[in-house]
Amino acid sequence: MSNPIHTDRASLQAADATDPLASFKDRFSLPEGLIYLDGNSLGPLPLGAAERAAEVINNEWAHGLIRSWNTAGWFEMPSRLGDKLARIIGGNDGETVVTDTTSLNLFKALASAVRIQQQDAPERRVILTERDNFPTDIYIAEGISDFLNSVNSETSEHYEVRLIDENLTLEQALDDSVAVLALSHVNYRTGAMWDMDSVTAAAHAAGALVIWDLAHAAGAVPVDLNGADADYAVGCTYKYLNGGPGSPAFIWVNERHQGRFWQPLTGWWSHAAPFEMADSYTAANDVRRFLCGTQPITSMAMVECGLDVALEADIDLVRAKSLALADLFIALVRERCGEFGLELVTPEVHAERGSHVSFRHPEGYAIIQALTDRGVIGDYREPEVLRFGLTPLYLSYTDIWDAVEILRDVLETSSWDVPAYRTRHAVT
Amino acid sequence: MSNPIHTDRASLQAADATDPLASFKDRFSLPEGLIYLDGNSLGPLPLGAAERAAEVINNEWAHGLIRSWNTAGWFEMPSRLGDKLARIIGGNDGETVVTDTTSLNLFKALASAVRIQQQDAPERRVILTERDNFPTDIYIAEGISDFLNSVNSETSEHYEVRLIDENLTLEQALDDSVAVLALSHVNYRTGAMWDMDSVTAAAHAAGALVIWDLAHAAGAVPVDLNGADADYAVGCTYKYLNGGPGSPAFIWVNERHQGRFWQPLTGWWSHAAPFEMADSYTAANDVRRFLCGTQPITSMAMVECGLDVALEADIDLVRAKSLALADLFIALVRERCGEFGLELVTPEVHAERGSHVSFRHPEGYAIIQALTDRGVIGDYREPEVLRFGLTPLYLSYTDIWDAVEILRDVLETSSWDVPAYRTRHAVT
Repeated sequence: MSNPIHTDRASLQAADATDPLASFKDRFSLPEGLIYLDGNSLGPLPLGAAERAAEVINNEWAHGLIRSWNTAGWFEMPSRLGDKLARIIGGNDGETVVTDTTSLNLFKALASAVRIQQQDAPERRVILTERDNFPTDIYIAEGISDFLNSVNSETSEHYEVRLIDENLTLEQALDDSVAVLALSHVNYRTGAMWDMDSVTAAAHAAGALVIWDLAHAAGAVPVDLNGADADYAVGCTYKYLNGGPGSPAFIWVNERHQGRFWQPLTGWWSHAAPFEMADSYTAANDVRRFLCGTQPITSMAMVECGLDVALEADIDLVRAKSLALADLFIALVRERCGEFGLELVTPEVHAERGSHVSFRHPEGYAIIQALTDRGVIGDYREPEVLRFGLTPLYLSYTDIWDAVEILRDVLETSSWDVPAYRTRHAVT
Repeated sequence: MSNPIHTDRASLQAADATDPLASFKDRFSLPEGLIYLDGNSLGPLPLGAAERAAEVINNEWAHGLIRSWNTAGWFEMPSRLGDKLARIIGGNDGETVVTDTTSLNLFKALASAVRIQQQDAPERRVILTERDNFPTDIYIAEGISDFLNSVNSETSEHYEVRLIDENLTLEQALDDSVAVLALSHVNYRTGAMWDMDSVTAAAHAAGALVIWDLAHAAGAVPVDLNGADADYAVGCTYKYLNGGPGSPAFIWVNERHQGRFWQPLTGWWSHAAPFEMADSYTAANDVRRFLCGTQPITSMAMVECGLDVALEADIDLVRAKSLALADLFIALVRERCGEFGLELVTPEVHAERGSHVSFRHPEGYAIIQALTDRGVIGDYREPEVLRFGLTPLYLSYTDIWDAVEILRDVLETSSWDVPAYRTRHAVT
């Protein structure tokens, strides 16, 4: 599938017939007749997840009751699932926990990185990220910065969130005031991907620590955090990892920081001896320091079902098919919808993009609504961006063909009666 | 049941027969033959909750996919469930959200209270709590304090966590340096209950804001946050509210603070316009400011099943039966187990206790293990405390009789072969 342009549906059916990942579609429950191009927002239900939840509820909760914290392994679940997830992102055992939300885990990672710099290089008070990052990542950086500055209102030593944008390159921004660089590996809107190895090395050379948000990368592209020598990573499990709506997120920390990392969300689960009920805090001397409060067990248990499917798939095959699906999608949109003014905003160079493809169009919102009504689910992101997730485990080449044909039909027939009040999807 | 001492099992059966709450037991799935005295740690499964989870998984997730954020009401769930929960704790509509964990919500409440005081009374830098509080509550206060102090290491204006204990009364501790008082309404270990009205009034008179942790109070005792004029409250839904293992917690904030409260966990769900994807943070002008990241929908949906049962029960009847069960339990332990050295650590005055009863015994851990083996589930808390939750919705007076008979049998026959390594329950 290296150059699918000028193809036809029969050729794509042939490609599907030899697709080594084709059988993975049978591992998911997908509605009949739907082409789901939004697995980068909420992945579908893996077979077995409903049964796993029922087991948690009807056996572990109803029958085991409080005993299940030990007997059903609830207490070990964040670390056990973390170790499984680590194999997908290049982590070692003991570097990852599944817990809380991506936002909260980013807060913990930022707080930890800032604390290390307070000790090693206290003059570094800049949190560097990019204007086009997922907004929450900027907000969390602002939240930390504002919080720290609130006690220092009369001094000039303020924390600052600095944004890479069209006026400030990464290289320009990485000066000796930067404490930590926090970037999304794959951009939530455009699908653009940073080169993790070179960016991490540049940040380290400039004296900054590095946090990677893998929300749109984990399970979608090959990630090797230890290979890149990153410091922290966070991400979610409900997109390409198919953990379920709002399933708990993850946080990874390079083991070299485990002796000294610190974060202020110091709940019981991060204590060195949580059941001694000591009246002051002593942090666990490992990745459990990034745990905090009691986790939603039913939702967390289902994360494992998605991880198990992901771990069976060869990530190199996943990546190759993802790129082929995207190349096909871009080529077909150009060929079949060229006259409708869709502007590609995703980089075409393979090494520079993740696993979703986005186009800009002034009627983007209305187009996405019309596609949804026709059984093709993508999503819309301000401003004017139509976003399509290309998930190799359950999408076929013919799905892409069919989706583009429906897109063409929508573009040909719609009158763009955009509702005055736009109700939108709730999550990235 | 005002004075059940010198009773017998037949009299208690008669009391059960006229118990106006007796039918609520049929609303829960409880293992046959088990006497569950740990509903203050993890409440049992309400009937309907498994079906609700299956509906979320098999219909809303599998079929609705990303559309369910709107069509299945996921986006409104934290506020909708918060308004339901508010009716149990004396909150008004729009003052409560169900979200995250109790630990995190306490962090948000503390951060918000500290920020208000930074503006109104910046010299107030003490977070006041008590040494016997649930340890996480102290740890979170330490976490905030350490975090703020980390940027101010060379000045004397440090935040401080001050602990009420046997050497420092509440009255002594409430001086003009106190920014915020954070207490658990009902103590997790002893069951002792603060008088919310008078403590809140005393704190306000001293210029402090007040946060109540309702983990062991919500659904167990009558709570009227607005009646007490409290400032903030947090709590969990998996104890007396029967929301399921690790189900999301809640946070309440008095509407008078809603124009100015602030907290640094500034995730997308707390933004004034989360889907405009603005590149800087603007807080929602209501209780949604206390939301942060994407919530675990399956676990959260089941919270409603527990709330619906709780809302059907008259809290005054619940409280009356709770006190009667506890009076009976204490009296029977004295009468039947008097020679075994169990020391009551729960206050006997009704107004001074919640809905669990604790005893201290040097072999407390072994006794709890032996009781568990005999089908009576309580739990153990350091040091040497046997804790028994008395939950009126699914416990009968004869359950208490039978539990004490088994306790007596355990005390009579055990040789206290305590394991060297004690594996304990994981949550309060």
